[in-house]
Amino acid sequence: MRIAIDAMGGDYAPDEIIAGAVEAAPLLDKDDVLILIGPKDLVASKLSEKNTHNYKCIEVINAETVIGMDEKPVEAIRSKRNNSIDVMAKMGASGEVDAVISAGNTGACVAAFQMRMRNLPGVTRPGISVVFPTFEGPLTLCDVGANISCKPIHLYQYAVMASLYSRHNFGIEKPRIGIMSIGEEDAKGNETIKKARELLRSDKNMNFVGNVEGRDIFSGKCDVIVTDGYVGNVVLKLSEALVSYMFKSIKKELIENHKIMAIPVGHVMKKIYKKYDYHEYGGAPLLGINGTALICHGSSKARTIRSAILAAKKYHKEHINEHIIEYLSKSDVRSADE
Amino acid sequence: MRIAIDAMGGDYAPDEIIAGAVEAAPLLDKDDVLILIGPKDLVASKLSEKNTHNYKCIEVINAETVIGMDEKPVEAIRSKRNNSIDVMAKMGASGEVDAVISAGNTGACVAAFQMRMRNLPGVTRPGISVVFPTFEGPLTLCDVGANISCKPIHLYQYAVMASLYSRHNFGIEKPRIGIMSIGEEDAKGNETIKKARELLRSDKNMNFVGNVEGRDIFSGKCDVIVTDGYVGNVVLKLSEALVSYMFKSIKKELIENHKIMAIPVGHVMKKIYKKYDYHEYGGAPLLGINGTALICHGSSKARTIRSAILAAKKYHKEHINEHIIEYLSKSDVRSADE
Repeated sequence: MRIAIDAMGGDYAPDEIIAGAVEAAPLLDKDDVLILIGPKDLVASKLSEKNTHNYKCIEVINAETVIGMDEKPVEAIRSKRNNSIDVMAKMGASGEVDAVISAGNTGACVAAFQMRMRNLPGVTRPGISVVFPTFEGPLTLCDVGANISCKPIHLYQYAVMASLYSRHNFGIEKPRIGIMSIGEEDAKGNETIKKARELLRSDKNMNFVGNVEGRDIFSGKCDVIVTDGYVGNVVLKLSEALVSYMFKSIKKELIENHKIMAIPVGHVMKKIYKKYDYHEYGGAPLLGINGTALICHGSSKARTIRSAILAAKKYHKEHINEHIIEYLSKSDVRSADE
Repeated sequence: MRIAIDAMGGDYAPDEIIAGAVEAAPLLDKDDVLILIGPKDLVASKLSEKNTHNYKCIEVINAETVIGMDEKPVEAIRSKRNNSIDVMAKMGASGEVDAVISAGNTGACVAAFQMRMRNLPGVTRPGISVVFPTFEGPLTLCDVGANISCKPIHLYQYAVMASLYSRHNFGIEKPRIGIMSIGEEDAKGNETIKKARELLRSDKNMNFVGNVEGRDIFSGKCDVIVTDGYVGNVVLKLSEALVSYMFKSIKKELIENHKIMAIPVGHVMKKIYKKYDYHEYGGAPLLGINGTALICHGSSKARTIRSAILAAKKYHKEHINEHIIEYLSKSDVRSADE
């Protein structure tokens, strides 16, 4: 399997990205190849510092420019010729690589992957899917920012894709699917939610549990939650900030008032933090793209990239895209406005 | 000041509600009166068990029926004659009471308060405002569920109301106001957000900082965040669940692997939990209603109700509604579709 990695994407690029590829190298299969995309001289020189002569599986492909984290996606893709995200997306489109991974500008990734690689047959809009680890098992949330103006059919397709991902990636046989709303009753929710609920109910192959609420990410009521990219993005960023905030509060309290406990409890906290740390999960798949595409957190470190590489291998190996194509080809659910 | 309390609202009604009124009684001013609304015999008999003969400040007003937590708001208000929420709302409307407090069905409260008490002059839609305690001070979020289909003018008015609340309730002189979006750049956000941003920018008296993200609830970047009731409700419920989930994770880890630390750390946790506990904050004001109206969490306990009673007193005393009326009467910001 050939996996392309945007060497220039993210707050800690290129060093942590390259380090992540190097960390992943010994974990790969015999015929796997990692391809780092970025300014060739820079990337090759950083790579040579890493004592990587043993790793024939790491190659470098040149891309002169880099899209900044805050640039406007579509404009940047068009104006920055040969930027690392677009070079990678074109390789994904041509079949030169089997998977693409970037911790760069999320909007630019979504735009470039869609523009070059196109959607899977039958998919109207791709969606980014993230996983929340909970006591009750992994909760998959889709979308978290690819699509902020969701139509009912998009939400239906997110449910199809995220549940196939949940099934084949986590082994949950028949994932229970909820739609994010503000109350359990059918009366709750806006028009898009109500229409999406009808589409979801009409598909008898779907294990749809109806409306869920913000709290249900952790309640064990479902395995998959679909929502539009605006709400999903707020949920994702809030959760990260709140977890970090809670840990800081505890640390502050311990240091100020219970200093003797600060160090032992600190160790416990670190252990828990690691369990719920997105760095361990690697990237979030952009479900619905014709290829394996993982988008990583902007603050990805080497271990995030290493995890993302392994996640891309699993996604590919489990044939998740093939399952999505097959499901949608058999589904007769269509949007009312199609 | 006369404060009406829905004795039948919430998961622990009527016992905890009545207990909350009793707890608040000694903290009131001389001419304050608490009026418990519910089936008179039941409430009076529960009250008599509490040794309340000293508290002449607690009265009971009869309301025969109760709206369940999961009933459809408008239908329930219409079909259940003399329900406690509606009886209270009518008293708020007639001026018999200066404030109304309920931990009952949120949708029914919003509907009844709007229907009976009406909006403040100039306000198009009321919004529920909650407070997140953070290291950087209290963050006020509006709306969290009164209005799931927000128009730009609603978001503008939420900013006006929530910032006046933040100013007069918490003493933040010029609250910094953000609008919840999915990125900082102006390009980010849906059409409603973009139009609301224009309205907010056009008001030079407003300390508007632009787009904020889910993480900014805890970042100290602003004091007030406006969002539609759908997103706000997800944020609120997710936050509660996540905090409780984190504490459970820590407890589990300690009990399983560091039993010796479980008890002392448990005490520290309780202290922190209390600091961020919504029970301490009492109710969330329904800003924009012509009166002082507080909506409490469904799982309110006695201390939540006690806090809500004190919060209602403060809201009233600070003349927050008068400030809102004055501000809006001078503002020339109007919706494009008005």
